[in-house]
Amino acid sequence: MDTLPKSVDVAIIGGAAAGLSAALFTARRGLSTAVLTKNIGGQLATTVDVANYPGIDYITGPNLALTIHAQAASAGAKTVITEVHAIVPPTDKGTSFTVETTAGTITAKAVIIALGKTPRSLGVPGERELVGKGVSYAAAAELGPYRDKTVAIVGGGGSAFVALRMASKLAAHAHLIHRSDTFRAETTEIDRLQQAANITWHTFCEVTAINGTKKVESIVLKNSETNDEQTVPVDAVFIEIGFMVKPDLFAKLVELTPQRQIIVDSRGETSQPGLFAAGDVTNSPFNQAIISAGEGARAGLAAYTYVTGKPAGADWGV
Amino acid sequence: MDTLPKSVDVAIIGGAAAGLSAALFTARRGLSTAVLTKNIGGQLATTVDVANYPGIDYITGPNLALTIHAQAASAGAKTVITEVHAIVPPTDKGTSFTVETTAGTITAKAVIIALGKTPRSLGVPGERELVGKGVSYAAAAELGPYRDKTVAIVGGGGSAFVALRMASKLAAHAHLIHRSDTFRAETTEIDRLQQAANITWHTFCEVTAINGTKKVESIVLKNSETNDEQTVPVDAVFIEIGFMVKPDLFAKLVELTPQRQIIVDSRGETSQPGLFAAGDVTNSPFNQAIISAGEGARAGLAAYTYVTGKPAGADWGV
Repeated sequence: MDTLPKSVDVAIIGGAAAGLSAALFTARRGLSTAVLTKNIGGQLATTVDVANYPGIDYITGPNLALTIHAQAASAGAKTVITEVHAIVPPTDKGTSFTVETTAGTITAKAVIIALGKTPRSLGVPGERELVGKGVSYAAAAELGPYRDKTVAIVGGGGSAFVALRMASKLAAHAHLIHRSDTFRAETTEIDRLQQAANITWHTFCEVTAINGTKKVESIVLKNSETNDEQTVPVDAVFIEIGFMVKPDLFAKLVELTPQRQIIVDSRGETSQPGLFAAGDVTNSPFNQAIISAGEGARAGLAAYTYVTGKPAGADWGV
Repeated sequence: MDTLPKSVDVAIIGGAAAGLSAALFTARRGLSTAVLTKNIGGQLATTVDVANYPGIDYITGPNLALTIHAQAASAGAKTVITEVHAIVPPTDKGTSFTVETTAGTITAKAVIIALGKTPRSLGVPGERELVGKGVSYAAAAELGPYRDKTVAIVGGGGSAFVALRMASKLAAHAHLIHRSDTFRAETTEIDRLQQAANITWHTFCEVTAINGTKKVESIVLKNSETNDEQTVPVDAVFIEIGFMVKPDLFAKLVELTPQRQIIVDSRGETSQPGLFAAGDVTNSPFNQAIISAGEGARAGLAAYTYVTGKPAGADWGV
């Protein structure tokens, strides 16, 4: 990794699909580029397999992130492992943004926000205390130690189903807990898992408590139709109920949706000139690696035009 | 390739990055999907190298297209090599679109338009007559036979520079003809080629005629600043001045920009319910394989919701 430059053309905050892709596009066009990120890969780094990235038959999430990082680095982009705590916009036209990080201060003619999201928590007793002791928000990365154990997966979307598929193969038994009986996952995947003998389906259920002292021992489930409660012994709880955006860094700088996502146009432009955004931090409706990568490229090209005053071109294969 | 189904959930018109990526996403979610296209790859098929696709270090354009096609086919999408000549929207709510092709008629609950663009021509005497006899709009694919010959490249954008780089390596001499002295290509690429000894740069110049009987023999250049004309002997002319959209198929169905591009929102939705668009046919500002692939995924997920009434989910790695 690199040390923090004093000033660059483009500072990119976030080092997953969107941020690294933006860096590839700005660096290839000759702009000095710094990626400021807590880690390489963000959410991708906790994704076991990416099976729907057009052009790549199969790749793990971490390897996809590392590949794009290597492409951006080879084009000249610097990566600094740090945390950003403030973005100060230009005071006058023609001056730069100031970005304050734990590694120091950097100025940039344009800034691209490509931060990911924070996993949503249940907010129930026992949850916070048992994180890392059986409570996890990253099943794909953290299911491994629970081979032949009993686990609970909470959620009804694609990431819950990825976790459920892994758990069905790996664990002795898996409990799927979902607040309705409608699942937001691929039909073939749902059908396949409903055949699995080692899954118990708890629909219309919520987790009301997680019990355990040194580690997770059981969960309490409440059925929202019958109000029945039951205690289910489990060794781990994987919470896969989506993500929150952390908007403190940019809430006063740019216009947000009521869900606190950054509003961008089709060029990745925000309401603040010179400040662009891409990926899951924006109001783009779908979160997929390929969509984030495309949005990163787009924001990078728009930032190029902002910094140089030149059109970024509309060319293939360059 | 497949025969035309009678009806599908989603018909996708166009078989390049956007269309094939859309097919991958609809087919993986269990929707019956037909890609209707004149060829696999569209503009990608004439792109020699794709060096900026995040996640893939280097791939040829045709191989990128074939890879995405194989992924979509493996997920169940059918591909029919045909030409679409009409799209008839549903007459009542709940009925399907009718798509008329040279292979017959197909009905579809949703349609995604992912057609590419047609190369722009110079419109000068001799041009049309000498296409295939030295006049080409696809340098990347068609420069090969001109090893050690003299060629002209017309244009100042990224694809002109890709052509120029190839020509500089392959041909004895290359003439670059551009109407201004501003180039829309990567700085490093321009700098590198300006060092090449076998390129003559004709800035502020236009081609006013292409001469030749059985094959291209020379071009006439006019300098727009001095009005001087000169005849330059060349063996081939590669015209790389961008692309036109062919809007006849959809001009009456959807709202277009003044440049006749389909106006889409951030879900790839057009003004016609059930009709989506992705890639270079839309008002999306940048044309890059990765951006088209992301837009295809997005349109595929939006079409899934339109057809099933279910959210497509916001999940990684599924």
